[in-house]
Amino acid sequence: MFFIVGLGLGDCKDITVKGLEIVKKCERVYLEAYTSVLTCGAEALEEFYGRKLIIADRDLVEQGADDILEGADKSDIALLVVGDPFGATTHTDLVLRAKQKDIGVEVVHNASILNAVGCCGLQLYSFGETVSIPYWTKTWQPDSFFDKVELNYRNKLHTLCLLDIKVKEPTLESLTKKKKEFMPPRFMSVAEAAQQLAQILEKRKSEDNILVSGASLCVGLARVGSKTQKIIACSLQQMCSIDIGGPLHSLIITSPELHPLEVEYLEQFRINK
Amino acid sequence: MFFIVGLGLGDCKDITVKGLEIVKKCERVYLEAYTSVLTCGAEALEEFYGRKLIIADRDLVEQGADDILEGADKSDIALLVVGDPFGATTHTDLVLRAKQKDIGVEVVHNASILNAVGCCGLQLYSFGETVSIPYWTKTWQPDSFFDKVELNYRNKLHTLCLLDIKVKEPTLESLTKKKKEFMPPRFMSVAEAAQQLAQILEKRKSEDNILVSGASLCVGLARVGSKTQKIIACSLQQMCSIDIGGPLHSLIITSPELHPLEVEYLEQFRINK
Repeated sequence: MFFIVGLGLGDCKDITVKGLEIVKKCERVYLEAYTSVLTCGAEALEEFYGRKLIIADRDLVEQGADDILEGADKSDIALLVVGDPFGATTHTDLVLRAKQKDIGVEVVHNASILNAVGCCGLQLYSFGETVSIPYWTKTWQPDSFFDKVELNYRNKLHTLCLLDIKVKEPTLESLTKKKKEFMPPRFMSVAEAAQQLAQILEKRKSEDNILVSGASLCVGLARVGSKTQKIIACSLQQMCSIDIGGPLHSLIITSPELHPLEVEYLEQFRINK
Repeated sequence: MFFIVGLGLGDCKDITVKGLEIVKKCERVYLEAYTSVLTCGAEALEEFYGRKLIIADRDLVEQGADDILEGADKSDIALLVVGDPFGATTHTDLVLRAKQKDIGVEVVHNASILNAVGCCGLQLYSFGETVSIPYWTKTWQPDSFFDKVELNYRNKLHTLCLLDIKVKEPTLESLTKKKKEFMPPRFMSVAEAAQQLAQILEKRKSEDNILVSGASLCVGLARVGSKTQKIIACSLQQMCSIDIGGPLHSLIITSPELHPLEVEYLEQFRINK
């Protein structure tokens, strides 16, 4: 059997009882560690589970499906993923590969940022399409995600922006070499995300039908579900210079119309009350 | 401290390790049992936790906040909710009431249908606004949710439809009596939801710009996250006569454009291949 187990968002103890039982009984347990991270490290997980984990990087998960699934027809193999198993396309793909090999698959769900974001008091049913904000480079500055933010805003919906993570990215120079060298990990902050949004607004200011502005109310979230969780509510302009500490961060551009309960709940996170 | 603990979607063992520790140490533990249900009953939970639970019905959660929070400034009280704590407005409201009373609040997240629905292979980032489909009566047949389905479809997004639950609804006759009598619980099936959608399409067929049709691809899900989970993919018309067993059900109207991986994944759930 191949198990794919969500770990939730915070620390070791956010795994479910069912998930923990599976981790303990499997022959090999992989930890997917590049689409997201927990606030505790892999060592803390190993100690809590009382067993060794195999760290699965992008190469292994995306190209090494055969290695991961090896023997899963006869014994139990698990892949642990931060959040919920279906949060990333590569995990869905892995389930398909397993089924093609006639390997049984069992999924253990858990919280993901898509529902845990409700902790800021914005109604989950008032969110539109989720967008991802990628790190820009000098020559690659895509802004098509902004059209989705704007569309949600027009339709009076909140937008959850998932912020880029760069873990184990090979350096440009090492791409042609045999031995890859890696850049230090980077996690986009709400301030960086807000700055990119502000640049897009500046670039598009001649378009006269843009509704999102520097004054639009945003919510910045850090380390959701952990003891050090931090939430802040302020304008997009103010968000450009906000520091809410270590990763992971998420940013919400709220709807222009809020429910009274949403307003009341957000009040506790407001800066400059 | 007031704890609000998500139970996830399946059975007893879908609670997190952190959540279970809280349940065991609290003085009083309430189980909210009207916005959703697990596939196991309250008795199974009590046995697994090794303690008594207090069943919290709609009256208690919506009007009895003071009773639930009584003593939470000095001892530990928990409210258990199916799915994630922020899945229903009443839970958000309860957190606010606690904070107003200067009672510390800790939230333990878990999977909810909003992310677990990814188990059908549709990308979570391609969903638009979620809608709720209510049970119609002879005199009350709202269809404004259909406008949202249609808008998502136009924007090439999937729509998750949450289906109505009627638990502990007083009978009309007993509303004026001292002792309320309750109707048997009802859980809307994907067939009932599809039938209501088909009726709306029929009523609106003279509007010539409706894109959703009886041929639109839908996905029906039952008991997501449990061992008896069932998923079916077929047209809206076919969904009207599909039986996928006991509650809870959810229905998805898919986007007119699917990603190749979505098509491949859905293939396993197709009827009339």
